[in-house]
Amino acid sequence: MTTPLHGVKIVEMTSVVLGPYACQMLGDLGADIIKIEPPAGDTNRNLGPYRTHKDMSSLFVNCNRNKRSLVLDLKSDRGKAAALKIIESADIVVHNFRPAAMERLGLDYEQVRKVNPQIIYCATYGYSKKGPYGNKGALDDSIQAASGIAALNEMVLGEPRYLPTVVADKTTGLFVVQAVLAALFHKERSGQGQEIEVPMFESLTSYVMVEHLWGQTFEPPIGKAGYIRLMAEHRKPYRTKDGLYLAVLPYWDAHWHTFCELSGNPELAEDPRFISMAERLKNINESYAATGRIIATRTRQEWLDLLGDTNVPMMVVNSLDDLVHDPHLEATGFWQEFDHPDEGRIRMSSPPMTFSETPASIRLMAPRLGEQSVDILREAGLAEDVIQEMLAAGETRQAG
Amino acid sequence: MTTPLHGVKIVEMTSVVLGPYACQMLGDLGADIIKIEPPAGDTNRNLGPYRTHKDMSSLFVNCNRNKRSLVLDLKSDRGKAAALKIIESADIVVHNFRPAAMERLGLDYEQVRKVNPQIIYCATYGYSKKGPYGNKGALDDSIQAASGIAALNEMVLGEPRYLPTVVADKTTGLFVVQAVLAALFHKERSGQGQEIEVPMFESLTSYVMVEHLWGQTFEPPIGKAGYIRLMAEHRKPYRTKDGLYLAVLPYWDAHWHTFCELSGNPELAEDPRFISMAERLKNINESYAATGRIIATRTRQEWLDLLGDTNVPMMVVNSLDDLVHDPHLEATGFWQEFDHPDEGRIRMSSPPMTFSETPASIRLMAPRLGEQSVDILREAGLAEDVIQEMLAAGETRQAG
Repeated sequence: MTTPLHGVKIVEMTSVVLGPYACQMLGDLGADIIKIEPPAGDTNRNLGPYRTHKDMSSLFVNCNRNKRSLVLDLKSDRGKAAALKIIESADIVVHNFRPAAMERLGLDYEQVRKVNPQIIYCATYGYSKKGPYGNKGALDDSIQAASGIAALNEMVLGEPRYLPTVVADKTTGLFVVQAVLAALFHKERSGQGQEIEVPMFESLTSYVMVEHLWGQTFEPPIGKAGYIRLMAEHRKPYRTKDGLYLAVLPYWDAHWHTFCELSGNPELAEDPRFISMAERLKNINESYAATGRIIATRTRQEWLDLLGDTNVPMMVVNSLDDLVHDPHLEATGFWQEFDHPDEGRIRMSSPPMTFSETPASIRLMAPRLGEQSVDILREAGLAEDVIQEMLAAGETRQAG
Repeated sequence: MTTPLHGVKIVEMTSVVLGPYACQMLGDLGADIIKIEPPAGDTNRNLGPYRTHKDMSSLFVNCNRNKRSLVLDLKSDRGKAAALKIIESADIVVHNFRPAAMERLGLDYEQVRKVNPQIIYCATYGYSKKGPYGNKGALDDSIQAASGIAALNEMVLGEPRYLPTVVADKTTGLFVVQAVLAALFHKERSGQGQEIEVPMFESLTSYVMVEHLWGQTFEPPIGKAGYIRLMAEHRKPYRTKDGLYLAVLPYWDAHWHTFCELSGNPELAEDPRFISMAERLKNINESYAATGRIIATRTRQEWLDLLGDTNVPMMVVNSLDDLVHDPHLEATGFWQEFDHPDEGRIRMSSPPMTFSETPASIRLMAPRLGEQSVDILREAGLAEDVIQEMLAAGETRQAG
């Protein structure tokens, strides 16, 4: 079986999480990803625990499988020329430099299209270059502040806080994949390439506002923005009698009736505050609190036994370490293990989607810095003496 | 200019957020989305504030633009036959029924491929049908508990909590779009359709673990899962002298030096705890706390003036209502307004990606329930008397 993107060639010039994660997903789908790194490497190579080599840290390994690494000093003439030579035969370029930096390098869309008019050129960074924030620097946290996420936490906690996951980088990465695939489909039908911009601020604002635009959906507004159920104090996993936590969500009317009946609280099903979904939403915090008081009366196992065969959505609260041994994920082979020649045995999550005909797959482990430099430069047709000169000048670098 | 998915026809049988949001993004990219709704409508039609009609609530409007609505009772013979007739000429089906429910309806992949062997058939629900949780019900919150998100919050707050946004539904929606587009590209090249499954649990676990697999990346593990910087107590927007909050992120060495210098704290740049990125990461909570103490000494405007021209990532904390009038988003035309014949003026976020040749676009506002029922049934070639009988029997319904 083939992969969906078999034969598609992508040149990645990104670092940290957003661009690397996006290109890793495209690699999982089968594309050949050439990751161009500066001589010092992707800054995230050194972030997180490592087994053997400091530059093969957990965070790098988890964002860079299915790629080959080519070191190029893009500020050198030969480095830049080599990049353009490789781009000549590529389908897609993804970069996360700010617009001005890419112009200075001479690798902006206008320059790149001269060597490959059909290229799909995707830039991703903090803020659209069309607006006044266009040259602002951005990190995940600043985009969480910009896009309302920190403010959502303020509505729950009384002070703005970032979420404990890099939601801005990763979600924008998913938009990058969407944009690139849509453009690739267009190119396949028409032969036409194009320039794409995927800004983090715009991506996250659109993502946050799906449910939170709320009263501001209408103009003039008929209320404030913010789906208040999600900020309710008692919306949380409930503590059971034995101090363990459980997500129990008697949300729809059928769920609520089942829950009230089986838990021995039939009067709650008749309570006017909770009698219908609409009433429960009006009294959502009381409804959550009432559920929490009931859950506190039995152990977690008692609840799992009592409600396990019903339709009421229920789930244990998995810790991160629990997930590595979750019985469902073990049964489906979600965690894959590979032996890396240097770094030992590596655990990776599978691509989460199942394709009956073109499965996504893990074919290459994350590369050492410059692991395929010479191979890739030869593939691109560079003369052997030029490659040797570039190695000697530090404009490229071969691992091992 | 055309859209990237111009001419692609998608049959959507989904409700709530995940499936509707995914199909809306595919609609933004230009696909013709036929949303099949039961006679009572998508359950989210009634969720949130509305201007005129209760079933045109904010949450529905924000997940269902660029679609046409067809009411069909899929449990009736004529309703099911009509769905299959429409699917005959479709490229893609997206549904979020649980596997057993779709089999009972006779609209599972095996049945659907009989009328359209080239169909891309994408199912999305809580847990992969290949594993032991395959028939569990799921809602956004239960998947947040399952996938480690509630536990991440416990590491910050001392008790597990859900995030104040439906991250499981929306992120899985982004994976649905990715999977469908990859399969569409494959179909364009090969003519081959296929079956796709996008489970929420697997999607979110892979998403959470990008940075959080951490010490469990290696086997045997060299530490626990969890990128602890993200759970640091003092990782948050800082309170300024005038009580306003500001995201200030002197993350890389150059940022840190600029920040220490300009804020009048050059000794901090020499402090051994903070002297390099590696040392700051080791002492991250102290580093955040030190930054917070400095930020408390000036007003927000003073900081914006002092650091605004530097590379230090900095951003105000926007409330949700602020975002509607953010000057950058206003300058780029991010918020679009449309006059709906019944519901008045509607505000919508633009697709966040810019395509130079095939822009995504908003072409249709969210439909009333069954707004295009008769049109779509006629397009599919149903006889006029059958349509009338279905209307009379309540197996379809025409709005207005």
